[in-house]
Amino acid sequence: MTFKRLLFGRPLKSEEAEGEKMPIWKALPILSSDALSSVAYGTEMILLELATVGAFAFSFSLPIAAAIILLITILIISYRQVIDAYPQGGGAYMVAKENLGVMWGRLAGVSLLIDYTLTVAVSVSAGVLAITSAFPALAQWIVPIGLLFTWFMVWMNLRGTSESGNVFALPTYLFIFCMIALVGKGLFDWATGAGSAAYRVSIPTEIPASLTWFVLLKAFSSGCSAVTGIEAISNAVPHFRNPAQRNAKRTMLTLGALLAVIFGGVTILSQAYSIQPDPTGTKTVLSMVAADAFGRGVFFYIIQFATMLILILAANTSFNGFPILASIMAQDKNMPRMFSNRGERLAFNYGIITLGVLSSILLIVFRGRTEALIPLYAIGVFLSFTMAQIGLVLKWSREKSQKWKRKAFINGVGAVVTFFVVIIFSITKFQEGAWIVIIITPLLLLLITQINHHYQNVAKQLKVDLTAPIETADTVIIIPVAGIHKVVVSTIAFAKSLTPNVVAFYVAFSPEDAKKMEEKWEKWNPGVRLVVVVSRYRTVIKPLIEFIGRAENRYGKKMKITVLLPEFITRKWWHRLLHNQSAFRIRAILFARKDVVVATVPFRLND
Amino acid sequence: MTFKRLLFGRPLKSEEAEGEKMPIWKALPILSSDALSSVAYGTEMILLELATVGAFAFSFSLPIAAAIILLITILIISYRQVIDAYPQGGGAYMVAKENLGVMWGRLAGVSLLIDYTLTVAVSVSAGVLAITSAFPALAQWIVPIGLLFTWFMVWMNLRGTSESGNVFALPTYLFIFCMIALVGKGLFDWATGAGSAAYRVSIPTEIPASLTWFVLLKAFSSGCSAVTGIEAISNAVPHFRNPAQRNAKRTMLTLGALLAVIFGGVTILSQAYSIQPDPTGTKTVLSMVAADAFGRGVFFYIIQFATMLILILAANTSFNGFPILASIMAQDKNMPRMFSNRGERLAFNYGIITLGVLSSILLIVFRGRTEALIPLYAIGVFLSFTMAQIGLVLKWSREKSQKWKRKAFINGVGAVVTFFVVIIFSITKFQEGAWIVIIITPLLLLLITQINHHYQNVAKQLKVDLTAPIETADTVIIIPVAGIHKVVVSTIAFAKSLTPNVVAFYVAFSPEDAKKMEEKWEKWNPGVRLVVVVSRYRTVIKPLIEFIGRAENRYGKKMKITVLLPEFITRKWWHRLLHNQSAFRIRAILFARKDVVVATVPFRLND
Repeated sequence: MTFKRLLFGRPLKSEEAEGEKMPIWKALPILSSDALSSVAYGTEMILLELATVGAFAFSFSLPIAAAIILLITILIISYRQVIDAYPQGGGAYMVAKENLGVMWGRLAGVSLLIDYTLTVAVSVSAGVLAITSAFPALAQWIVPIGLLFTWFMVWMNLRGTSESGNVFALPTYLFIFCMIALVGKGLFDWATGAGSAAYRVSIPTEIPASLTWFVLLKAFSSGCSAVTGIEAISNAVPHFRNPAQRNAKRTMLTLGALLAVIFGGVTILSQAYSIQPDPTGTKTVLSMVAADAFGRGVFFYIIQFATMLILILAANTSFNGFPILASIMAQDKNMPRMFSNRGERLAFNYGIITLGVLSSILLIVFRGRTEALIPLYAIGVFLSFTMAQIGLVLKWSREKSQKWKRKAFINGVGAVVTFFVVIIFSITKFQEGAWIVIIITPLLLLLITQINHHYQNVAKQLKVDLTAPIETADTVIIIPVAGIHKVVVSTIAFAKSLTPNVVAFYVAFSPEDAKKMEEKWEKWNPGVRLVVVVSRYRTVIKPLIEFIGRAENRYGKKMKITVLLPEFITRKWWHRLLHNQSAFRIRAILFARKDVVVATVPFRLND
Repeated sequence: MTFKRLLFGRPLKSEEAEGEKMPIWKALPILSSDALSSVAYGTEMILLELATVGAFAFSFSLPIAAAIILLITILIISYRQVIDAYPQGGGAYMVAKENLGVMWGRLAGVSLLIDYTLTVAVSVSAGVLAITSAFPALAQWIVPIGLLFTWFMVWMNLRGTSESGNVFALPTYLFIFCMIALVGKGLFDWATGAGSAAYRVSIPTEIPASLTWFVLLKAFSSGCSAVTGIEAISNAVPHFRNPAQRNAKRTMLTLGALLAVIFGGVTILSQAYSIQPDPTGTKTVLSMVAADAFGRGVFFYIIQFATMLILILAANTSFNGFPILASIMAQDKNMPRMFSNRGERLAFNYGIITLGVLSSILLIVFRGRTEALIPLYAIGVFLSFTMAQIGLVLKWSREKSQKWKRKAFINGVGAVVTFFVVIIFSITKFQEGAWIVIIITPLLLLLITQINHHYQNVAKQLKVDLTAPIETADTVIIIPVAGIHKVVVSTIAFAKSLTPNVVAFYVAFSPEDAKKMEEKWEKWNPGVRLVVVVSRYRTVIKPLIEFIGRAENRYGKKMKITVLLPEFITRKWWHRLLHNQSAFRIRAILFARKDVVVATVPFRLND
């Protein structure tokens, strides 16, 4: 117990939930590291797509970035409206469920859960890649290092939101500081013509014939990876300190401004420094921009280090988003019930551990290769964006409140654009792995629908007429015995205290064995009948089940049959492995096959 | 159930054990594939050691091989004496336990168990290496392929000895046939001067200064890897068809003859063809001998294929040896009890699965690299050889039966030689990995000793005075409830049928909640008292344990407390995951903390 406390901290009272809630300065790093980290590779994604046509196309990165910043603006405005409309959290799931129907809500929820899982795998792999680029000797340990990071985050989050916020705040702020310094210095140099930022940034006025719209669109959708993570804030409104809504909206606005400045700035600078993306991925565009702006000095390495940290920390946004979303869905019976239980530290332990397990599986299966995971990523987020925005359009046009036409227009544009990104993504990345997501999403949707049906069926079955009298029945207690020793004595004593109908049941493996046991029992005479069965298989379970079947036939439904099984309680934990194996098996099989009560009688061993 | 039957076959009666026992033709492939497969690399090991000095040293492989064949002869004679003296099986474990004392027996047992596990990992890796050499595209899947083979063997062995024998017999006989054909053809060519076997085989008469005794000894001990696996037959005597002893001894003799002929023959041929070992391991010595003898025709590839099969099958010897040895040790309470239980197919399931798990861990940790595993290997076998032989020397000199001096001399020589190999192995391979075995062996020995002590303590605690009267006590039944529904009704009905002392226990998370429940209960009035506790933690367990503590204090030891927990029995297996989580946790924690009976009342769901 002391060990557990040391590991996870003391249990928290429900009232302490408020203390666990996040002020803006903590919420920003916890909920935005995913979106911010995307900036680290957003520009690069665009340039790499354009590079497939030729270096002349690079100048198109500016209008594309402008379009993406416009998209960010639309999404920020839209999600601020989501926060206002659904302050209980749940984001796209809630909006879709309320306005489009339960199935669409589930689809939005499932898409987001898948994407949260992918975010962990992608960002941990990317972070580990940054480390192994610096220390190539570690390259063979990519998966173990990734698992280590993942489970470190599981651990931190099990300790509770507040503490994990403390741990994760510093690196995020370091990254923000570095990026603003980078963009500021770079743009200043560019404006004044100082340093190496000598190139003129040109905005293309017409599209050359060799540059197809398809390539431009693909570049646009690749750059949209910089947008993922925005929705995390709207899911987590209940985790904000009061006034939760206002704080969440402010955080959203801050995030939007940071994204626009950093993403836009880096894209302009990549033009100003006339940077060529490195298709081998050894040097990132961001690192080249940093090198040109500051030279390869101390600050360059600080930027590299901060980038590595933020990439890993991006996973932490999911560790916040996934459990909250799962708990909200569980309250609606759209996820297994336990996801809505808070642990001793007020965290949603099941959600956190589930996310840890699933992303570990992804890390192992894809061997921590970022480039293999990226094509699976972002479809889910954009699908949920689309549904949230359609949902809001319907909401506005139904409610017809003030300025509803403007609101509906904004969300309508957002819906079209994000849906468009989903389509481009699905088509252009289908072969590279998007098909996996396209197959898994409906399967999970089906699973969740069945879970919901099951819970609803159970609720129906549990309904009871409280005016009906309670009918009791007689009980027969069966005690399987393996011989005559202290445990048998105490179990029989317990059984006799409950009912006079007690039968001991012994399985002999040979007739001689049977005779010996019968004689011994008669001599002892505990006042309980012994039934001996000779079995040629080496198991007690089959004869026991047959015996119960005979008893059921004889006494019918009026008798309730109870089987007593002793269980050894050992002092040292590992001694447990030395006992009770048969009792466990008998218990599991009896439960599956027979309608009997199984009672476990503890027997405490001294050593 | 039908699926299980399809997978593992119908359950076997205890009498059918005789049918599962092995005739010689089945025992040879099952129990000797390990030893036979060693031949595939024995000569190579010697030549590789000698190559460190220079090609001139190769001629020393002949006297070294002669010494090893002498060692094989001594071991075969010695182990035939083991079979006579200990027909119940157990080999070195039994001999050491009976003649040197329990601790030495455990040491021999542990050493063998470790080596069986290593054998699986080594031979599976070597087999997979043979496959990936042929199909380099598979190289990145070494570990998964190895795991696949391992668990295929687990599956086969769970089906029972008889069936696994059928599967494994053919490849072993194919290998034996190939080797005898190879040695026969090669020696015939050499004797007649035909083919490419033109070189004269020279036996060195003096040792050049540059060849130290250390190198010769190291080469000798490396070649001794060809000897491992001999002991498997003596462990498995009870698995032989009657007359078991005679059959086992015959199998032993056959194996010895095969080993001597193949190992000696291949070594002579490697001289005759003047073969240089390939330190990169791309071409094995055996494959070069085969190529020279038959040319690179069909038969050459058949030999390659047979070698690959036997390398993988060598692991199967361990799947026979490990479970039998573990079961014999478990009968002596030197291993957890369940290792002595036979499954439905009469196989020792726990031993088979344990071996599968342990060797899988080795495969994963060492990433299927044979060369990393080899240095850990063979120490255990030779340690057990040494102890078995010392044990026999003591036995002969104590019993002083006919010809005891000759017998004792043979075993004495064997003991000295094998102990010598242990020392050479430990020193020369210490750094390469032997240290792991040297550390793990005493740790496991300690663990096994503690297991034994625990079982002996338990046996003492379970002793009972059968003349004492059985004392019954009153019972209080506590039913934790989460609301009022059908399950609560049926659980209360069951409790009331057993005793009038029934208390329902409800944990409210707020005072309002508490009041509401109390009112509802009063209205219902099931004739059972309801205790409501308000808790600020979100768990039922803590308040329940405190409540039980208070009840214990009030009623003292005279009252036996029983907690009734409902458990949902679902129709579909995966629905299980949606229920009972809290009940499982409550059950586990109650058991660990409180001396109460926990009875689980099943509630069957329709869907």
